[in-house]
Amino acid sequence: MLYARTGNEGDKTVTQDRAGIAKRAGALLDALRATRPLVQNITNFVSMDAAANALLALGASPAMVHSAEESGDFAARADSLVVNTGTLSLPFLEGGETAATSAHMLGRPWVLDPVGVGAGKFRNDAVLRLLRHRPAVIRGNASEILGVARVSGLHGEAAAPRGVDSTHSTDEALATAQHLARHCFCVVAATGPVDLITDGARVVRLANGHELMTRVTALGCALSAVVAAFCAVDEDAFEATVSALAVYGVAGEMAAELANRPGSYRVAFMDMLDAITAADVAARLKVL
Amino acid sequence: MLYARTGNEGDKTVTQDRAGIAKRAGALLDALRATRPLVQNITNFVSMDAAANALLALGASPAMVHSAEESGDFAARADSLVVNTGTLSLPFLEGGETAATSAHMLGRPWVLDPVGVGAGKFRNDAVLRLLRHRPAVIRGNASEILGVARVSGLHGEAAAPRGVDSTHSTDEALATAQHLARHCFCVVAATGPVDLITDGARVVRLANGHELMTRVTALGCALSAVVAAFCAVDEDAFEATVSALAVYGVAGEMAAELANRPGSYRVAFMDMLDAITAADVAARLKVL
Amino acid sequence: MLYARTGNEGDKTVTQDRAGIAKRAGALLDALRATRPLVQNITNFVSMDAAANALLALGASPAMVHSAEESGDFAARADSLVVNTGTLSLPFLEGGETAATSAHMLGRPWVLDPVGVGAGKFRNDAVLRLLRHRPAVIRGNASEILGVARVSGLHGEAAAPRGVDSTHSTDEALATAQHLARHCFCVVAATGPVDLITDGARVVRLANGHELMTRVTALGCALSAVVAAFCAVDEDAFEATVSALAVYGVAGEMAAELANRPGSYRVAFMDMLDAITAADVAARLKVL
Repeated sequence: MLYARTGNEGDKTVTQDRAGIAKRAGALLDALRATRPLVQNITNFVSMDAAANALLALGASPAMVHSAEESGDFAARADSLVVNTGTLSLPFLEGGETAATSAHMLGRPWVLDPVGVGAGKFRNDAVLRLLRHRPAVIRGNASEILGVARVSGLHGEAAAPRGVDSTHSTDEALATAQHLARHCFCVVAATGPVDLITDGARVVRLANGHELMTRVTALGCALSAVVAAFCAVDEDAFEATVSALAVYGVAGEMAAELANRPGSYRVAFMDMLDAITAADVAARLKVL
Repeated sequence: MLYARTGNEGDKTVTQDRAGIAKRAGALLDALRATRPLVQNITNFVSMDAAANALLALGASPAMVHSAEESGDFAARADSLVVNTGTLSLPFLEGGETAATSAHMLGRPWVLDPVGVGAGKFRNDAVLRLLRHRPAVIRGNASEILGVARVSGLHGEAAAPRGVDSTHSTDEALATAQHLARHCFCVVAATGPVDLITDGARVVRLANGHELMTRVTALGCALSAVVAAFCAVDEDAFEATVSALAVYGVAGEMAAELANRPGSYRVAFMDMLDAITAADVAARLKVL
Repeated sequence: MLYARTGNEGDKTVTQDRAGIAKRAGALLDALRATRPLVQNITNFVSMDAAANALLALGASPAMVHSAEESGDFAARADSLVVNTGTLSLPFLEGGETAATSAHMLGRPWVLDPVGVGAGKFRNDAVLRLLRHRPAVIRGNASEILGVARVSGLHGEAAAPRGVDSTHSTDEALATAQHLARHCFCVVAATGPVDLITDGARVVRLANGHELMTRVTALGCALSAVVAAFCAVDEDAFEATVSALAVYGVAGEMAAELANRPGSYRVAFMDMLDAITAADVAARLKVL
């Protein structure tokens, strides 16, 4: 049994083994390539290139539409949305809130990537404002997940990281992630050497990926975009998120067999997002 | 005879065969590398990296100067200009209008890339405002060319695409592209598996390029920057545009012989923009 | 003896030979990788990707925090800062000034990259405003260094370049660079085929690097970020700058042995920033 029961939301708890996760991930990957969902990205300047290319390589259709003048209208036609708080400014926050409002009202899944939360009042307030529009998934590193919980008033003890990189392990974030998921009625994914995904009740821990993924900028942000793409092909945001992280992590391992330095690794990783198949996921997925 | 006569502008109609197009394209490529034109780019955040690198690889000199405080002054010293409506916001639109006004008044050629036109009133109005400053070339995919015609009041029947990718073939856009070219007194290029270039009278259809070009973000936007570079070395914007598309498409085919997945294809494509010669164009150009 | 005595600041003048420079550069490279300094980047849209990836490949930790709402607070926690005037706009200038003020008050080193200075009043005024906050290092091409001196009122004779590329050799900028360094109490680095570093008294000229570095966008901007990273591990900004340029130039040469066209060169260069060791610098450094 892979999913630990941790709450009362027993109706959502599904017993699923490694083979089951791999099968779902592979099926969603095929569905994504067949349907080519349109994913709206409101993301930081550093990650736009990586996010757009990751979505294209995987088989989705990216659209970067962020200004408040049109982000809400566009969210109504997109299949899913990601809002990322890196390189945050007031115009981007307004665009993100407008799109998130629209997505929430229309029942479109959207993913919050709270880059650098904890760095100060401006960014913390921005995350709080975005949370009101009910993301389907919050995806960050362990420090960011702890940071979102802290600005939500759930936990106050964890020290903020200095930069944008995590200073905590995902296992340290487990209890907080579950609490946050229940508090926000959403899926929480804390990613790192071990990826942790929970909806408050269900918990999955994946162990694919490669250290080189942290040596290339914006691969975390691009992952959030990929989670949004998978949410467009599975109504269960928990299953979609687990599947997205499974595919992304396996592609990361495959890329490390082709390249061992960050410049060429980035190229190989984009290639592997294109090359990866359901069979690769089935053969390589590591579930803890 | 390659150029179909379709209007009354017979004075511009030139009979030219495949060899003639290839020869002109090769000569302009050499001229571009010899003179290294300064191309001002007011483009979206996703494509700045690709556009600047494409121009540098080809042999031109890119400058990304977009804020209204300086975009007009800079247009006076640049050899040509491209204005792109991706990731549009009011400050970028003001910067683009300021630069386009300056370019038009000074007789500098400028290229409009109407990314995502049809996505809503804000972007449609922006395209209309930019059109008043008389671009030398409008370069987009077929859906965008139909979209520009629609917002110009020329045609109302075509459905808007959902995202930024084309849902029409360039041949479907032929009559509209010609009408638009005559209406705006400019060259219209609808690019896709078949590239269509017209100034209302002359029409050329090219069939180089590769499907992988659509799997890397911003290669369409970078193409518009390359068209602007060619416009800087040929006063006839029609010939310049045909030549730019010929070179770009042939480079795209050469890259596909080196790489077959999107990450490595992007790298190979930039390499081929550097490697391509007039002889490559002469050997590989496909004119329909 | 490498350092030419050129002023009265004899207390800073150190006699140092090629071996000494290489040794210092190697030691700082190791220190950078051991301590992983947090470098705040307020840079242009074109270079964010290259700057972040260069810092990550080298072993530093980049953070792109530019909006005035948080750039000052963030500068207090970062180890160093770079402010770059490419794609300048008023919001970026405000963010840059806020961060530079904070860095200066707290004694954090910051690097000014005056991209395109001389292009007009807006950018010139911006550079003047930034200079008031006392950068530790000004890093630009020769034309930009001449441009900074000109807007500072030091020299008026040099013609402004048309674009963002240098139209002067670094040796033409030597006397002006020294004057500027003394005037601003900072290190001035004019980079090109020959890199010139001076604090007004000391002068070092390095001759590594490769022509392909000018065929990839933003490698100059990324160098300024790397200078900031080295300033975080050496209190002597002159030694830090010389070391940064030594490492960067040698990595550039190593990359040129792996790739001979701009697309693949960019990839190889990022790989070499990761691969380069103190021994590589010792073996390859060229000091004039």
